[in-house]
Amino acid sequence: MILVDNVKLYTGEHSFPDGAVLVEGEKILYAGSRAACPKAEQARRIDGRGGILMPGFYNAHCHGAMTLMRGVGSDLNLMDWLGKIWPIEKGLTPDIVYWGSLHGIMEMLRRGTVAFADSYFMEDQVGRAALDAGIRVNLSRACTDKEGVDSVTGLYRQWQGQGQGRIRVSMGIHGEYTSTPQVVAYAVEKGRALGAGFHIHLSETQGEVEGCRQRHGVSPVRYFRDLGLFDSPTLAAHCVHVDDEDIAILAEKGVWAVHNPASNMKLASGFAPVCRMLQAGVKVALGTDGASSNNRLDMLSDMRLASLLQKGFTGDPTALGGAQAFAMATRTGALAMGWPQCGLLQEGMQADMALLDGGAENLCPTPDLPAAIVYAAQGLNVRMTMVQGKVLYQDGEFPTLDKEKIIWKAEEAARQLGVY
Amino acid sequence: MILVDNVKLYTGEHSFPDGAVLVEGEKILYAGSRAACPKAEQARRIDGRGGILMPGFYNAHCHGAMTLMRGVGSDLNLMDWLGKIWPIEKGLTPDIVYWGSLHGIMEMLRRGTVAFADSYFMEDQVGRAALDAGIRVNLSRACTDKEGVDSVTGLYRQWQGQGQGRIRVSMGIHGEYTSTPQVVAYAVEKGRALGAGFHIHLSETQGEVEGCRQRHGVSPVRYFRDLGLFDSPTLAAHCVHVDDEDIAILAEKGVWAVHNPASNMKLASGFAPVCRMLQAGVKVALGTDGASSNNRLDMLSDMRLASLLQKGFTGDPTALGGAQAFAMATRTGALAMGWPQCGLLQEGMQADMALLDGGAENLCPTPDLPAAIVYAAQGLNVRMTMVQGKVLYQDGEFPTLDKEKIIWKAEEAARQLGVY
Repeated sequence: MILVDNVKLYTGEHSFPDGAVLVEGEKILYAGSRAACPKAEQARRIDGRGGILMPGFYNAHCHGAMTLMRGVGSDLNLMDWLGKIWPIEKGLTPDIVYWGSLHGIMEMLRRGTVAFADSYFMEDQVGRAALDAGIRVNLSRACTDKEGVDSVTGLYRQWQGQGQGRIRVSMGIHGEYTSTPQVVAYAVEKGRALGAGFHIHLSETQGEVEGCRQRHGVSPVRYFRDLGLFDSPTLAAHCVHVDDEDIAILAEKGVWAVHNPASNMKLASGFAPVCRMLQAGVKVALGTDGASSNNRLDMLSDMRLASLLQKGFTGDPTALGGAQAFAMATRTGALAMGWPQCGLLQEGMQADMALLDGGAENLCPTPDLPAAIVYAAQGLNVRMTMVQGKVLYQDGEFPTLDKEKIIWKAEEAARQLGVY
Repeated sequence: MILVDNVKLYTGEHSFPDGAVLVEGEKILYAGSRAACPKAEQARRIDGRGGILMPGFYNAHCHGAMTLMRGVGSDLNLMDWLGKIWPIEKGLTPDIVYWGSLHGIMEMLRRGTVAFADSYFMEDQVGRAALDAGIRVNLSRACTDKEGVDSVTGLYRQWQGQGQGRIRVSMGIHGEYTSTPQVVAYAVEKGRALGAGFHIHLSETQGEVEGCRQRHGVSPVRYFRDLGLFDSPTLAAHCVHVDDEDIAILAEKGVWAVHNPASNMKLASGFAPVCRMLQAGVKVALGTDGASSNNRLDMLSDMRLASLLQKGFTGDPTALGGAQAFAMATRTGALAMGWPQCGLLQEGMQADMALLDGGAENLCPTPDLPAAIVYAAQGLNVRMTMVQGKVLYQDGEFPTLDKEKIIWKAEEAARQLGVY
């Protein structure tokens, strides 16, 4: 058992100025006020030293190994940027994807992220990295053809449920503009047979939407709906250019829209209508996208950005408030990725959590915990990250990772790929 | 002498993969490649451990002591928010402003900020705090009446040039909507007599601009121009709602526009047309505004946000690139606040700099130093902050500050003010 106390607890729903969380194995036995905490003499105690304890973050759209391309082609148009990225990606090897993924995972664990939905190449290497690290991952391939789709079957059989359920696999379609209706229909059939959800890119740019209308006469949302893809649980990254009818479809089909504010701004893709989607009943999670278009894997950065952006964009300072932005980055993401027992600190839930530094000058004072977390906290305020009851980061140490080796391997891979 | 080497050096203009900076007293003796660095056997060496060394940040609009109100009235309209803040500010005492300012200064030093332009009450306490801490400050009062203006004369005589030139004083007018033309004219006369520059709030909200047009028939920019205020060097915070004619005036009069992206977004004031201002020749610096509308005092956060926001807002991903955003936060801010010998790491300049952690996973790889700093770096990556040749923060220690006492005093003040 582990007892984390001497904390300001934010469970994702309630605040306790003097809180405690008791963990046994994978699960939370108790979360609430310290005074009412059951006795646990044998528990190993983690002294929160007055910090904020909260659910960890669920990064619902990421390309973890793209940390290796961080800073490549900054300040370029999407197509010019891809013109830099694609030749580099041709040099990827399984070993490079493994180390690049570990690099991304380390960056996320250091900043309180407990799970990520990854869409990339050689996803078995991402699975290996996640298993070694102990983080949760929802793996998928960004398929563009039937061979890719077929390969997901093997990926699913090998990885689904591994790591005491920490690893899940989704069927993937990169996007409307990089595949045909035949490939999408094939993926829908295969995905359904496996019982897998989907992970796709959806309506990221105006050009994509216009191209889809020319090719298929409908928006990308209607295109995928008509092909039956949304009949499976779907993580739909971006959803920037969605009209009212699109939004109604996303809500009706229960699609998980994943907002990626930093990436959308950096590539000037547009402002996703997050508040309008939420008001229409769409479930909106949060993602960092890859480090090459962000250029960080820090959910605290993107959670704050999401809130500020909606306020600025809608002209309404009450838009996407602290608690709502926090839920996007935690509970909604957990549900979106297929872990209904995650994302809240309460009895019986999986023990995924993050602890913020109580001595940090930027976390003083804290009259409103969700506001402190969303607007004032910073990724490097995280002192401890726990996934499924195991501490994976604490005070500079990663029990499952060799930090120096990962950085060294990442620098070596970046050189090998021609990033420098 | 101090030698900082084993660094990736970004001088503000040039990158040196293996750089070094040699400091003697207040000044930089050398900044460039390690190989060409003059010998300095007696110098105390700071091993940069592969980190990025760069100019420190110049926060050109701030209310330092408002850290004490951090998190108050989050997600409220401006007027509702002020309705929470103003009653709290009635409880301010000199002692509270002193400790609140130290709190803000500590947060800034920890994140690489070497100077700030402060507009608040009881500015002699802010001066005291800055002198004790060793940070640079440009003090001003947000005057609304002639008594306030008169008091700046005393402030100027007491503080201008103190701390080996680290302390400067500006005349202040809070804004058009909180003073009369008579008060502004009086301040212009008094400011000119002192030889002081100005610090004002300008065209922050649409309502302010509309109100000014009703009251005076012109925009706030034209109002202040007509009253002669811009004939003195002026820090004009916000400049969100400025039209083409306003922009032409700001350029012609050499006004320093200070962009506050986080505050403008959080309060939904609007998006400042930073790219349009820069193209028109306006000099644009960067500020955090107060922690109660940000809710951090972290220039790295706001520099990144400024760049992302302009890209998103203009639809152009090449807008406000890394080097340009960095210059706003450093050199332009230094000039705006009246330190022409600051903001670049080169021979003869004042030794104000910050060192980023070379072992940080988010700073790997670094093919482009300004991009790494602006998009990937985080405030808490700062390992060392030097002001005028003195190390004021290094690896968790503040040589001039008692961190625990400041946090304790800030919490106590927040309680006393009714923040909790």
